[in-house]
Amino acid sequence: MLQAPDRSDQGSRARSGAMAQTKGTVVLAYSGGLDTSCILVWLKEQGYGVIAYLANIGQKEDFEAARKKALALGAKKVYIEDVSKEFVEQFIWPAVQANALYEDRYLLGTALARPCIARGLVEVAQREGAQHVAHGATGKGNDQVRFELTCYALCPKIKVIAPWRMPEFYQRFPGRRELMDYAKKHGIPVPVTPQTPWSMDENLMHISYEAGILENPKNQAPPGLYKKTRDPATSPDTPDVLEIEFERGVPVKVTNVGDGATRCTALELFVYLNDIAGKHGVGRIDIVENRFVGMKSRGIYETPAGTILHHAHLDIEAFTMDREVRKIKQGLALKFAELVYNGFWHSPECEFLRECIGRSQEAVVGTVRLSVFKGQVYILGRESPRSLYNEELVSMNVQGDYEPADATGFININSLRLKEYHRLQSKVTVQQDE
Amino acid sequence: MLQAPDRSDQGSRARSGAMAQTKGTVVLAYSGGLDTSCILVWLKEQGYGVIAYLANIGQKEDFEAARKKALALGAKKVYIEDVSKEFVEQFIWPAVQANALYEDRYLLGTALARPCIARGLVEVAQREGAQHVAHGATGKGNDQVRFELTCYALCPKIKVIAPWRMPEFYQRFPGRRELMDYAKKHGIPVPVTPQTPWSMDENLMHISYEAGILENPKNQAPPGLYKKTRDPATSPDTPDVLEIEFERGVPVKVTNVGDGATRCTALELFVYLNDIAGKHGVGRIDIVENRFVGMKSRGIYETPAGTILHHAHLDIEAFTMDREVRKIKQGLALKFAELVYNGFWHSPECEFLRECIGRSQEAVVGTVRLSVFKGQVYILGRESPRSLYNEELVSMNVQGDYEPADATGFININSLRLKEYHRLQSKVTVQQDE
Amino acid sequence: MLQAPDRSDQGSRARSGAMAQTKGTVVLAYSGGLDTSCILVWLKEQGYGVIAYLANIGQKEDFEAARKKALALGAKKVYIEDVSKEFVEQFIWPAVQANALYEDRYLLGTALARPCIARGLVEVAQREGAQHVAHGATGKGNDQVRFELTCYALCPKIKVIAPWRMPEFYQRFPGRRELMDYAKKHGIPVPVTPQTPWSMDENLMHISYEAGILENPKNQAPPGLYKKTRDPATSPDTPDVLEIEFERGVPVKVTNVGDGATRCTALELFVYLNDIAGKHGVGRIDIVENRFVGMKSRGIYETPAGTILHHAHLDIEAFTMDREVRKIKQGLALKFAELVYNGFWHSPECEFLRECIGRSQEAVVGTVRLSVFKGQVYILGRESPRSLYNEELVSMNVQGDYEPADATGFININSLRLKEYHRLQSKVTVQQDE
Amino acid sequence: MLQAPDRSDQGSRARSGAMAQTKGTVVLAYSGGLDTSCILVWLKEQGYGVIAYLANIGQKEDFEAARKKALALGAKKVYIEDVSKEFVEQFIWPAVQANALYEDRYLLGTALARPCIARGLVEVAQREGAQHVAHGATGKGNDQVRFELTCYALCPKIKVIAPWRMPEFYQRFPGRRELMDYAKKHGIPVPVTPQTPWSMDENLMHISYEAGILENPKNQAPPGLYKKTRDPATSPDTPDVLEIEFERGVPVKVTNVGDGATRCTALELFVYLNDIAGKHGVGRIDIVENRFVGMKSRGIYETPAGTILHHAHLDIEAFTMDREVRKIKQGLALKFAELVYNGFWHSPECEFLRECIGRSQEAVVGTVRLSVFKGQVYILGRESPRSLYNEELVSMNVQGDYEPADATGFININSLRLKEYHRLQSKVTVQQDE
Repeated sequence: MLQAPDRSDQGSRARSGAMAQTKGTVVLAYSGGLDTSCILVWLKEQGYGVIAYLANIGQKEDFEAARKKALALGAKKVYIEDVSKEFVEQFIWPAVQANALYEDRYLLGTALARPCIARGLVEVAQREGAQHVAHGATGKGNDQVRFELTCYALCPKIKVIAPWRMPEFYQRFPGRRELMDYAKKHGIPVPVTPQTPWSMDENLMHISYEAGILENPKNQAPPGLYKKTRDPATSPDTPDVLEIEFERGVPVKVTNVGDGATRCTALELFVYLNDIAGKHGVGRIDIVENRFVGMKSRGIYETPAGTILHHAHLDIEAFTMDREVRKIKQGLALKFAELVYNGFWHSPECEFLRECIGRSQEAVVGTVRLSVFKGQVYILGRESPRSLYNEELVSMNVQGDYEPADATGFININSLRLKEYHRLQSKVTVQQDE
Repeated sequence: MLQAPDRSDQGSRARSGAMAQTKGTVVLAYSGGLDTSCILVWLKEQGYGVIAYLANIGQKEDFEAARKKALALGAKKVYIEDVSKEFVEQFIWPAVQANALYEDRYLLGTALARPCIARGLVEVAQREGAQHVAHGATGKGNDQVRFELTCYALCPKIKVIAPWRMPEFYQRFPGRRELMDYAKKHGIPVPVTPQTPWSMDENLMHISYEAGILENPKNQAPPGLYKKTRDPATSPDTPDVLEIEFERGVPVKVTNVGDGATRCTALELFVYLNDIAGKHGVGRIDIVENRFVGMKSRGIYETPAGTILHHAHLDIEAFTMDREVRKIKQGLALKFAELVYNGFWHSPECEFLRECIGRSQEAVVGTVRLSVFKGQVYILGRESPRSLYNEELVSMNVQGDYEPADATGFININSLRLKEYHRLQSKVTVQQDE
Repeated sequence: MLQAPDRSDQGSRARSGAMAQTKGTVVLAYSGGLDTSCILVWLKEQGYGVIAYLANIGQKEDFEAARKKALALGAKKVYIEDVSKEFVEQFIWPAVQANALYEDRYLLGTALARPCIARGLVEVAQREGAQHVAHGATGKGNDQVRFELTCYALCPKIKVIAPWRMPEFYQRFPGRRELMDYAKKHGIPVPVTPQTPWSMDENLMHISYEAGILENPKNQAPPGLYKKTRDPATSPDTPDVLEIEFERGVPVKVTNVGDGATRCTALELFVYLNDIAGKHGVGRIDIVENRFVGMKSRGIYETPAGTILHHAHLDIEAFTMDREVRKIKQGLALKFAELVYNGFWHSPECEFLRECIGRSQEAVVGTVRLSVFKGQVYILGRESPRSLYNEELVSMNVQGDYEPADATGFININSLRLKEYHRLQSKVTVQQDE
Repeated sequence: MLQAPDRSDQGSRARSGAMAQTKGTVVLAYSGGLDTSCILVWLKEQGYGVIAYLANIGQKEDFEAARKKALALGAKKVYIEDVSKEFVEQFIWPAVQANALYEDRYLLGTALARPCIARGLVEVAQREGAQHVAHGATGKGNDQVRFELTCYALCPKIKVIAPWRMPEFYQRFPGRRELMDYAKKHGIPVPVTPQTPWSMDENLMHISYEAGILENPKNQAPPGLYKKTRDPATSPDTPDVLEIEFERGVPVKVTNVGDGATRCTALELFVYLNDIAGKHGVGRIDIVENRFVGMKSRGIYETPAGTILHHAHLDIEAFTMDREVRKIKQGLALKFAELVYNGFWHSPECEFLRECIGRSQEAVVGTVRLSVFKGQVYILGRESPRSLYNEELVSMNVQGDYEPADATGFININSLRLKEYHRLQSKVTVQQDE
């Protein structure tokens, strides 16, 4: 999937000057934006040879323009890697299997992307023999942790350069104005559209919005903020009805009951669900969450396909999985979500959890029918060849293989403990009364 | 809240005949419907004196008609007790504090009502010196367990009569037809409207629909099934925006931002939220769940107010509660939801959990602003005098009391374990390669 | 491992008379003792053809005498099956891997044996086409549950006969005297030694003592009760020092450092550890535990080899397993122990847990050195090719790959939350003071 | 409990020279040993005014000599505070209630002491208006975290100086020799006894031994290492039998059954148990544990009284606490132990857990009889006015309030899920066979 990297042109090599590479090579997680462009130039100033690494993880981006920009700014090489497929299959699917939800609400869109990108970054560093990697994540956030834990876990010897945590960098650029000045001075193209009063991060799974005016948790998200989903107020007045087929807890086919459209490969299926969910305004949340570094932050997320899949998987899992296995798996998934959020995707414990959760999904097979409408996903029905649902057993009209009298014994034995507790409480109460 | 019971008229006493009361008195959880009316008469046939107990827990019901009916059928007394307020304050509120959700989806509307009703039933039995209580719950369901565990926990000596588990009863009434015949024979009024092809159970918090055509989990809920919420397709095109104020994790005031309407007492507030949510089609789910007796069943629920409160409480709790306290509390609440579902409301462990969860709510104070629209609840913002959110600390523009360099150490130490694991894995891999 | 069953002699066939087998065949879990001998005869009286199944699971027993006795009493066939090896490898080993401990103290000796025996019982029933199995477990205990859940899980169609829960049986035999009378009447050999004033149950792993004078939880276990371990007061004055080698969390070799004795197969190794531990009085506990049926009971257990292995495995696991994996595994093991205790060995959830726990044991490899002395096991040291212990990293004299300054950042970031909490608490306190 | 601090004599003031106090005042957690004596002098060199704080937490120490030493080295003041009583009542007792055990084995002796000492340290800093506190904990260990998290939690503004994490300090003192040289040069008394080849830390609850020759996890602890307990090989040949009375999960009285000795106050009782347990060699463990900073370390601990209390409390708790409450509490206690180990005693989550656990102990009342002998604690019996143990209910001779037939229903209902699972598995198997 890795495209052949371009050599930087001579101009940039000239510009990088005499100091270049005295500190070795750094692979920079490059986004094409103002921040990482400035960092690219600044790293060169510091004496590093810079290789730019840009992962295509589904964000809207002109990748070729970014490539040219990086080369123009003096990158020795530029890697642009399409990791969308890996992102869906190796990161989103395990999260779907887990029903992973951080703090009951967040579907982990950014948290799942970071280890995927950082893995690519480290691989390039290893291939290029670079001793360093660098990223543009801030010093207060989760992403720095997610990036770096992945790097260290996969390549303990790597050195990470995080300019936003280095006083020589962040004191030089206390605000956007200083970055703009630096950009102008170093020929870094400056964004022409005015900056939104918040920051956003996009990938195939979601967009997150935070900072700026959103930092006041009382402020409502302004109209026009959302990019991936339509406003439910103006979304279509008729639902789309879908059937999603699962195998081993993973969606393998989506059918639109209305027009018969189907999608079967992981990436196509996910993109299609994004389209449908986006069209109906599904997947918006506004939350205050707890960052790993210990502060509360406010985030607004839209996760269209992820939201549909969360509902659908919950349903097919409940239909096919034993009650007690489910309870254990639910506990594991809670831990899994926390670990993913905190950046421990590549860790022994997260690996262990993925294996356990994966094992629990063996019989999670079947089809869920659902309706997508006005910001909501409605489960309509489900069927499965591996279901533990037994229509005869549960029926109110048929006795099935069930003896009602057994329930009497069941209840009586379950009440034993409660009766004993009551007996003791009464004794205590009586004694206190005396 | 207990209304003075009416004596049964002489006619019924005459009808109850010579055998009456030779087996003692039974207090029957009476609903006014066909089943419990037949049970009332049948119990008399068996030689019991029957007192009817009908809890008003918010269901739509003509209570006076039910009273007359019971007396006409030979009940010695009829108690009609309005437990709505207790239901909200003593049962629903703790569930809101817990964010109680059974198997990730069910808000426990029936499970919360049962111990409230059963408690009333037992109290009447104790007041009346009755040795028995009876109910019309089936032998395959959860309600029998919830009823009886409550009865035994509060009054270990009580004897429970569950006709649907007694062969002499259920073999006599294998289907609805036999019940109808019995009703006709014994002067029990027969429902004039045709029966829905499913059964439903209603209380202030929700309506549940199950059985009949819903037993096939693939069958979509038919249009017209829902009684408590409007179809989102035809619900209003403009949202209602509400502000819900919490103290100790419990809603104490609701304000409709649109028209300025406010509600402050528990019951009024809950009823109002039911209205608003119902109007916008909020709170419908269709799930397959695991019953305590070990079978999977399909249930459709609508929980309008409960759904709004679930979202609102999640939000204010996340805003005010420490991250690690929240994680512990989340684990407790999972257990709590399971216990409530299984009927253990009145148990030492559930009592313990309620106290722990209650303790966790001390600082859960503040106001959540939200929009109710087309089947969905959208959080818009929140504020609190007890929030742990620190706008300065989290700001991307202000450093606040935070040293970015600390994050480097934090990440490095957190990576230590991962590096060691990698080191060992490499060693193992090398050995295997040799 | 299954020995060819003997046909019952003609005498017994004659005695079983005309009524025999009209109710079909039952496979009885036969112990050779008074209870199950009476049950054997009683079952024949009831019209069953009886096959006796006697599992050799390491108890002290004259199996040939038991065979003869069963045949003499009219058993159609007798199966005597040595399941010791399966018991160790398939039941005890997973418990060792899990460090399974019920309620912090009980090593589950009986609970592990029951599904092993019941599995054998069911297999015989299936081979013989018997519709029923029977056992002599009481109606208040855990063993009935463990037996029957195994039977139903492995063969849902089987019918279980539990005489001690059948009024026609237990009312006929309210006490030992009635059993003795029945025995004499039916030619059942009566024990010649006086009965101990408690009951005991033995297998390869442990002996449990309960009931009788032990039912008073204040009563001290009388001298002479213990059969599998010597009194530490009279045990040797010099320790045995052992080295136990583990692979995948399972012991594969034991070496006695003193005399160089080694044991390598599962069964031999376990028997050897029983000898050594028994000789030094290791493994006695006196506890009050909670039965699955809801009552507290008092049990005294001696588990010699199991106690050594528990200590040794804890040690090698801590040495080789990642901290966070261990924490997750510990939670799984708690649940595992509870399930095993309650009789759910053969259940989807227990299967799931065994697989997860098994997965966690992959790197649990190495050797533990320990001393066994006067009722205690002392860990002396350990080594492993898969250890995550890094002597250089932890050393107080060498810096290793560790930067002390990182700890500052680590602590500071960890304190962030605590500072915020303090800030809020102070604010609240100030407000309250005003 | 705080003794009036001594002013430092003029000599030391003179010695501290011109630079003194230009950086403000620091309160140093002083031990009287070589390390913190050197730190004291070094801090003065750096320009701090130093107040020495020495907590008497039960370690063997000549406190008056330490006071003189600190003053002689130039401390402005010396606080010697006896916190033993607070340590037992406010730190050890909650750990006893929790049955707190880190990683299944460690009773947390050091982890409990640190927040107690650090609290005293911070209180002195606040009283003295000092901006800084300092400690002599190393940069790789847990104690630095425990100290500092407590300091920050109780006084967010405090600045912590940790010389062993400052390059200017640790590079100056890479080994003991450099410390000795520094000591000689600055008139710091040098230990006359040769250093043990390991380090130890003592308090009322335990002694920990680590580092040096113990860093090799294979090395056996040398004879003569243990200071708080006798070698079981030479301990008395007759046990001491004790009765320990609990209220609310806390020991309130110890009676030696042999000689009738009793102890009732927290501190006396704990000291007495230390004596008895120490005399019989109780409480030694040798483990590899996981430090919070991410490395495995080897520690040897002796915790005499704590070990007795752990056994006794487990027993009385199991006797008096409902099974399900116990299970929940056990989960809370696991988390509690981890938090205490990691230094989060003063945190919102640990506070929350202590309250929940405290609540669970209300009925943990009664007396445990036990024998202490040759390194082991044997529970002999127990009694309680609040026990949930019901001798009649559990009896094998009396039916009590128990219906054996109920167990049939209980088992059957519990088997339902297992049968369904088997049914599905069979179906799958059949399909695979086809």
